[in-house]
Amino acid sequence: MSKGIFITFEGPEGAGKTTIINLVKEHFQKMGIRANFTREPGGIQIAEKIREVILNKDHVNMDARTEALLYAAARRQHLVEKVIPALQRGEVVICDRFIDSSLAYQGYARGLGINEVYSINEFAINGQLPDLTIYFQIEPEEGLKRIESSANREKNRLDLEQLSFHQKVQTGYEKVIEKFPERFTVVDAAKSVKDVLQDVLSILEKNMNI
Amino acid sequence: MSKGIFITFEGPEGAGKTTIINLVKEHFQKMGIRANFTREPGGIQIAEKIREVILNKDHVNMDARTEALLYAAARRQHLVEKVIPALQRGEVVICDRFIDSSLAYQGYARGLGINEVYSINEFAINGQLPDLTIYFQIEPEEGLKRIESSANREKNRLDLEQLSFHQKVQTGYEKVIEKFPERFTVVDAAKSVKDVLQDVLSILEKNMNI
Repeated sequence: MSKGIFITFEGPEGAGKTTIINLVKEHFQKMGIRANFTREPGGIQIAEKIREVILNKDHVNMDARTEALLYAAARRQHLVEKVIPALQRGEVVICDRFIDSSLAYQGYARGLGINEVYSINEFAINGQLPDLTIYFQIEPEEGLKRIESSANREKNRLDLEQLSFHQKVQTGYEKVIEKFPERFTVVDAAKSVKDVLQDVLSILEKNMNI
Repeated sequence: MSKGIFITFEGPEGAGKTTIINLVKEHFQKMGIRANFTREPGGIQIAEKIREVILNKDHVNMDARTEALLYAAARRQHLVEKVIPALQRGEVVICDRFIDSSLAYQGYARGLGINEVYSINEFAINGQLPDLTIYFQIEPEEGLKRIESSANREKNRLDLEQLSFHQKVQTGYEKVIEKFPERFTVVDAAKSVKDVLQDVLSILEKNMNI
């Protein structure tokens, strides 16, 4: 289907995914390794417009299924306009969150059903699954602690309900990994940033044949 | 799931569907028969916003699967905010086009696959299929003639490509009817407006227990 390599990063909030992606990007730049870093909606106009409909504060009545369909629509357009062309040029694409986030958050944690949310995402991606998905594993309590101590994040949402939601997200991801064991590689995100970066770089180097 | 009756009208362009729906509406008003007439996006704010994304002329790059997901999202929200509440009040809802239009136009005529488009619409409607679907059957050539002679429609798009597309839409609807025979009732839309109206009213009266 394509000559490039499609790699996604997944994990609950507070796992350090975005921090590590930024460090990988820096490292690649320093080493002259070429890769496309993206995350949905990724500046793709149609995907951005769809995201605006999802995030519009007037849309308090938005049904969970409507939202899941809109995420799938934005995913499709970002994939078609940004990811697939790069893969067809034989390049590496590293995407921060993709289909598995929808499966874990909406399918499992929000209760729509992993298989149900997968069915609309299967339609959206039309066979273009990632070649590799790096999962940042962290205990929900530890992830929440990191969110709490981060200056960039809202702190007041940290309550018991949130812990139970984070636990559900983690269970959701575990079920997703069971569904696609061949494409997942799990990293221990509880380690130090330096150690996690080292683990991720060695996984990437192996899979990108650097 | 609901106490009311959910009726949809389907058919290719030029079959006279909208004309008949307006006459049914008039007739019902005269006779004091209560029914909700609607069509997507139906004034539902979120559904209207989604439709704006679909119809935005800047969005020439919109992928056919993105479009199908957006139609399904708008359908979901219209269903949840307008159709289901009326059905739960025990009322009759008559909807001009619904899931079968997506199956015939996008699934078959545009080549995405009826089963593929059904999978995302199944997610969108979550079991709320119409109780009855009235299909306006007309030969594609006859439908096109009617479009041509109507002052309200654009005429210049009438060419051979359009005839072949209309034929595909008709074949698509035939396949959809084969898939859901129990819910479809076919009317011969080639008859005069008066006769079609009579046929439709008698079908409605039977199904609405009037």
